[in-house]
Amino acid sequence: MTNTIRAEIITIGDEILFGQITDTNTQWIGTELTNIGIRPFRKSSVGDQADAILQVLHEAHERADVIIITGGLGPTKDDITKKTLCTYFGVGMVRNETALALVTSFFEKRGRAMTDLNRAQADLPANAVYIQNDWGTAPGMWFEHEQRVYISLPGVPFEMKHLMTNRILPKLAQHFKTPIIKHKMIRTVGIGESFLAERIEAWEDTLPDHIKLAYLPSFGGVKLRLTATGDDNELLDRELAEQVQKVMPLIEKSVYGFDNDELENVVGTLLKEKNLTLGVAESCTGGYVSSQITKVPGASAYFWGSIVSYSNDVKMNQLGVQPETLEQFGAVSEETIRQMAEGVRKALGTNVGIATSGIAGPDGGTPDKPVGTIWIACATDQRTVTRLLKLGQYRDQNIQLTTTYLLNMLREEVMNYK
Amino acid sequence: MTNTIRAEIITIGDEILFGQITDTNTQWIGTELTNIGIRPFRKSSVGDQADAILQVLHEAHERADVIIITGGLGPTKDDITKKTLCTYFGVGMVRNETALALVTSFFEKRGRAMTDLNRAQADLPANAVYIQNDWGTAPGMWFEHEQRVYISLPGVPFEMKHLMTNRILPKLAQHFKTPIIKHKMIRTVGIGESFLAERIEAWEDTLPDHIKLAYLPSFGGVKLRLTATGDDNELLDRELAEQVQKVMPLIEKSVYGFDNDELENVVGTLLKEKNLTLGVAESCTGGYVSSQITKVPGASAYFWGSIVSYSNDVKMNQLGVQPETLEQFGAVSEETIRQMAEGVRKALGTNVGIATSGIAGPDGGTPDKPVGTIWIACATDQRTVTRLLKLGQYRDQNIQLTTTYLLNMLREEVMNYK
Repeated sequence: MTNTIRAEIITIGDEILFGQITDTNTQWIGTELTNIGIRPFRKSSVGDQADAILQVLHEAHERADVIIITGGLGPTKDDITKKTLCTYFGVGMVRNETALALVTSFFEKRGRAMTDLNRAQADLPANAVYIQNDWGTAPGMWFEHEQRVYISLPGVPFEMKHLMTNRILPKLAQHFKTPIIKHKMIRTVGIGESFLAERIEAWEDTLPDHIKLAYLPSFGGVKLRLTATGDDNELLDRELAEQVQKVMPLIEKSVYGFDNDELENVVGTLLKEKNLTLGVAESCTGGYVSSQITKVPGASAYFWGSIVSYSNDVKMNQLGVQPETLEQFGAVSEETIRQMAEGVRKALGTNVGIATSGIAGPDGGTPDKPVGTIWIACATDQRTVTRLLKLGQYRDQNIQLTTTYLLNMLREEVMNYK
Repeated sequence: MTNTIRAEIITIGDEILFGQITDTNTQWIGTELTNIGIRPFRKSSVGDQADAILQVLHEAHERADVIIITGGLGPTKDDITKKTLCTYFGVGMVRNETALALVTSFFEKRGRAMTDLNRAQADLPANAVYIQNDWGTAPGMWFEHEQRVYISLPGVPFEMKHLMTNRILPKLAQHFKTPIIKHKMIRTVGIGESFLAERIEAWEDTLPDHIKLAYLPSFGGVKLRLTATGDDNELLDRELAEQVQKVMPLIEKSVYGFDNDELENVVGTLLKEKNLTLGVAESCTGGYVSSQITKVPGASAYFWGSIVSYSNDVKMNQLGVQPETLEQFGAVSEETIRQMAEGVRKALGTNVGIATSGIAGPDGGTPDKPVGTIWIACATDQRTVTRLLKLGQYRDQNIQLTTTYLLNMLREEVMNYK
């Protein structure tokens, strides 16, 4: 077996340290490196200060075979990555004519004037291999230095992703002879981490040394991740499949998918398979359920539309909820949620109707119906199921959890639909 | 001036390195530390391996005054933070009776059986000060060791936030005498980073040394962050206010808010001030615009509802778009978007109607109307404005950018409404 190739991911920018932006780049890079058998074992963020950047580069040099640096390549004065790389490598800055031509054409195409700051984006450390960025004016750079590979990329996520996918990952795969790391993810919903752990404990104890298990809890669900390391691609796949087969009988009812399956994709596939159309009525989730469903490309094949009924007028006029029902039981009640799910089915002429109504918070709770009291329902021509959720006090969490539970209810109803 | 208190934030978990979850904790912690004048200068993520955790702890000890560690405190076998802290501090593990009582009552209240794994969550390194977690079974811990403070917190975001807000931040503020760091954020929309930079260059050059400027680009906008360091709270506030006053005339038209203002909050405040109600018609954004608007607590004061019209039937039946319009011009056209915005206003009986219709991608483009061709509109009783956006090829980005531009159009229309 070849040696593990160790990667360190470094993000540069005060905005990350001070918490003004969410760093999603390192997550994405971590996944992609893992997929080609390079093992991320450290992530570091430092600010836009030369000494901090130099320190982390020196540390990474001691630990890593490949060092991926994002950020600090913008045209403005607070971006100092390139200058600092010159110091680190002990080289000067050179204007790259290919890069300059690209920056120039980028501005010409958009009919915008180019500034000196933009022109300076074509200046690279002398030892850099220029990596073309088709999506912006900050270049990618590849350095080889004392048996390590250093890669510098812009921090703008879609530019970074484009460069990684099309230029860097293939080059890395070619450069290193990597061991194989394989992942298999089992996605569950509606069961807590420690209960899942108790249920599969005996199986977990039988896992061989080269297959590791991790629990990844998230809103309303836990993902089980199996990681296998070795040098035989097919053998690893077979071993992972065998382990999945062993554990599945213990947890089958809670599993909605594998690997990158999201609930909204699983539900969409089921609806398409059964040739069913969907309408959504949302009150407390305010459009979030619909936006999750329509994240899936091609959702228009089964999703016809939604009515977000924040006001009671919309519940009555657009969804046909009876005024007496609202008066007698209130908007947050089993009677109302039933009429909403059945009403949206009728109003939009779809096979299936789903609905949410509740108190997302932080205000609007009563002793009777505290914040977190939320009804969900799913209606077909065969039956309508309803469920009361008793959630917590945080608005965002309540909206997300409600959406997860409703999509899972929809999944079960569509799965069992005959 | 007192010395800078330097903080290092360490997240522990293979799931972060391998990219299976997004780490939002360090962002939040970074913001909160900055607010109490502690300067985060390094963030590190390591996997669930004792040697990697020990290494980063030793490094952090060299660099930081306070070290905040999240993650690896779960009840399952892959979580090894506590054991590793014992090794690092050279102490044993002791069962904490207060913690045990809390874990026990946590399970009793929920009527759930407790496992040995759960019970072991009450075991703490002997030198730990126990910090009570009211929201889960993993305890917070505070250590003082060789003039440094070490804090270990669960990785579950809402538990971590609760512990930080109510227990740790006040304790830190008390423990350290901190210098003051003040931020002022100016939020712009619809202008590129380098154009903004050129426009304010002369002003930027006049900034005193203790006030720094950073550009934080995001979807459809750029945030300008001013950071002032000193020891006189009021003086810093006054200096920041003066700088804002100086730069505003240069960028006024692009500024929608300050600090934590989000477009959806600014728009909500404006609608309330003018006593206007809002209805939304969404096609390509699929509910995302509505979900952004309803993220704001109390949105029900002005937001009545939405119709998400993915299918043409819904556009005709629920929004009153003319069949001939759809036939002659298509769903993605100025004529249709106008009827959608005016139609939702009428259907829901609101003062203002806004609408989106376009090709979000990745499929559905034509030579005539490529992916990224998106119309937006805003209708009041006074006028209807429409705008054609020519965006890119990525579905997520198109949805987000369309939402930003539409909310900004709404902001301008409501602001100018008489």
